[in-house]
Amino acid sequence: MTIPSLAASGLQLRSLVKPEGQLELSLAAVSTPQPAPDEVVVRVEASPLNPSDIGLLFGAADIATAKLAGSGASAVTTMQIPGRAMKSMAARLGQSMPVGNEGAGVVVAAGDSDAARALLGKTVAALGGAMYSQYRCLKLEQCLPLPEGTKPAEGASCFVNPLTALGMVETMRREGHKALVHTAAASNLGQMLNRICIEDGIGLVNIVRKPDQAALLKSQGAKHVCDSSSATFTEDLTQALVDTGATIAFDATGGGKLAGQILGCMEAALNRTAKEYSRYGSTTHKQVYIYGGLDTGPTEFNRNFGMAWGMGGWLLFPFLQRIGAERAQALRARVVAGLKTTFASSYSKEISLAEVLRPEEIAVYGQRATGTKYLVNPSKA
Amino acid sequence: MTIPSLAASGLQLRSLVKPEGQLELSLAAVSTPQPAPDEVVVRVEASPLNPSDIGLLFGAADIATAKLAGSGASAVTTMQIPGRAMKSMAARLGQSMPVGNEGAGVVVAAGDSDAARALLGKTVAALGGAMYSQYRCLKLEQCLPLPEGTKPAEGASCFVNPLTALGMVETMRREGHKALVHTAAASNLGQMLNRICIEDGIGLVNIVRKPDQAALLKSQGAKHVCDSSSATFTEDLTQALVDTGATIAFDATGGGKLAGQILGCMEAALNRTAKEYSRYGSTTHKQVYIYGGLDTGPTEFNRNFGMAWGMGGWLLFPFLQRIGAERAQALRARVVAGLKTTFASSYSKEISLAEVLRPEEIAVYGQRATGTKYLVNPSKA
Repeated sequence: MTIPSLAASGLQLRSLVKPEGQLELSLAAVSTPQPAPDEVVVRVEASPLNPSDIGLLFGAADIATAKLAGSGASAVTTMQIPGRAMKSMAARLGQSMPVGNEGAGVVVAAGDSDAARALLGKTVAALGGAMYSQYRCLKLEQCLPLPEGTKPAEGASCFVNPLTALGMVETMRREGHKALVHTAAASNLGQMLNRICIEDGIGLVNIVRKPDQAALLKSQGAKHVCDSSSATFTEDLTQALVDTGATIAFDATGGGKLAGQILGCMEAALNRTAKEYSRYGSTTHKQVYIYGGLDTGPTEFNRNFGMAWGMGGWLLFPFLQRIGAERAQALRARVVAGLKTTFASSYSKEISLAEVLRPEEIAVYGQRATGTKYLVNPSKA
Repeated sequence: MTIPSLAASGLQLRSLVKPEGQLELSLAAVSTPQPAPDEVVVRVEASPLNPSDIGLLFGAADIATAKLAGSGASAVTTMQIPGRAMKSMAARLGQSMPVGNEGAGVVVAAGDSDAARALLGKTVAALGGAMYSQYRCLKLEQCLPLPEGTKPAEGASCFVNPLTALGMVETMRREGHKALVHTAAASNLGQMLNRICIEDGIGLVNIVRKPDQAALLKSQGAKHVCDSSSATFTEDLTQALVDTGATIAFDATGGGKLAGQILGCMEAALNRTAKEYSRYGSTTHKQVYIYGGLDTGPTEFNRNFGMAWGMGGWLLFPFLQRIGAERAQALRARVVAGLKTTFASSYSKEISLAEVLRPEEIAVYGQRATGTKYLVNPSKA
């Protein structure tokens, strides 16, 4: 069954790395598929530009070199990829890739099954990939029906940030820690994590880079906020770790010295209560998970935190697989229940697919800075 | 029961950090205790100078500044600790610490129990700490009786190196890897690990720093040896990782770029067989455990190995606790059975307690370099 107004084709944003060392953004006309019995077609109306999307969108290209040619559906934006970075792009060379991990929209066509037809006209969210598309055909199990009265913009960020924030708390518990540290803590994700920890009564040490970010989090009830630009940062962080007992951290920056500093301060906090000299340092395991790469430079640390430590990558999808379908479903249900409160996201601007390609917009959302998160509305003209 | 020749006191090596920024090595006269029923007194005749012992012996002191004063039992060696390093010594300040993790000797006195008396005159090994002592009183459960005909020098290194090498293989298996990488691979420990892997048919990638170290390992049957001083090191290592499928490494150096290079080459090896582009890199977990600190400088890496990676400290004692008493006992039994073959250690020199204090000896064994491992014989005049 198809709603008559459904267009035969729709635009889809594409990112392509060319062997000559250029990245090209364009809009491809993609025919709208006839949904199989267990599928629906969603008219996407809201999809966030998350750091993980921006990573795929621009690859290793230098966004300062972005140039737009043409207009409307035939617009193409080209940017340069530094020669030394081409090696890391080898695996995606020549592949025109759709982008957009998650989003929400209205079901405008449904396959020939009761379950599919039941969704017609409903607003659903999905972690489907290729969500920067006007029409996206999805399996029923990919669709998360949103409660009556939820707008697509309110459900656009149902998955990545909420499940990542919940995943951090879940990982903390599963690995036997009682409180946690978060960096880049004034981000949408960080604010969400702060609300979760307040709700659950969990100690959270928020690390930010600027005084106004600290003020923002404090205004939202955060108890422990450490500003890495402060002269007393190391002492502040150590004290917050003593106060909370946090021995696990989630770091969005990746590069630089922060991850190592956190381990060093954890060790200092643990040693404040140590009773005798241990030449291998504290025996309590200290862990930092790097889940982002806001600082793309090298990671560096002095091993001044004994031998009981770990550092490693953390990624949402393997985490969800590890905890199993049932527990993952419970986390999703919590997100839906708190979509307008705990898990609410905010955006500084809503843009169309064509506007995603505009250099003046790229210069803003491409920074991945706090307060510049954009929402893409592929159905916007 | 006490053997008549047992002296009322014996010398014990001590290391002391003074608040003024000096480290002092001396020989203390310690009265030989009367063993409790479940204890024996061992006349220590052989105890290795392992890197972990050297770490405690010298702390953060600069061995190039070592100065000896006095002679015989009243000799004292003093060395300077750089001001910036005193912070890391805070917890051991003013404590005169005995040294020597492990060693072997002859039971010369026994407590009043059948089990203790049965050991009289026998050669035993122990991981007792304070083994740079002429007489060491030990609990029965700390003593590992050596097979008839084993000299103390042959049993001196029963624990630290053999159990660390076996622990690496055990950790590899428990964490689901099928082959492993080892750095500083020409060390006594590295040669032992090579023999274990040959025995067990496990793929081992040996990383060394010099051509003669590579030649040494190859002469001992090592199949994969990569010399980090070679211009083709990165390619050699990647190929060895492809050939063995190793995705876990044990690194003795700690500082510098090597740990990160290993992860980067593991990722490159995994991607050689990858079928499609994954923006988060290979999904196979890659792990480096840092178990030593031959390079005391900062650890630095570029995160060019996806998100499925971990780095962390690895230490023998927590490992043995984790695997439980039964499995630990099985590992020890394997060591005893192979003491003169797989688990044989070699030393470049045997020195007395007084000689441990001599600057000209410190200059050699203090390097912790391949081929300069010393054996301490506290019973040597």
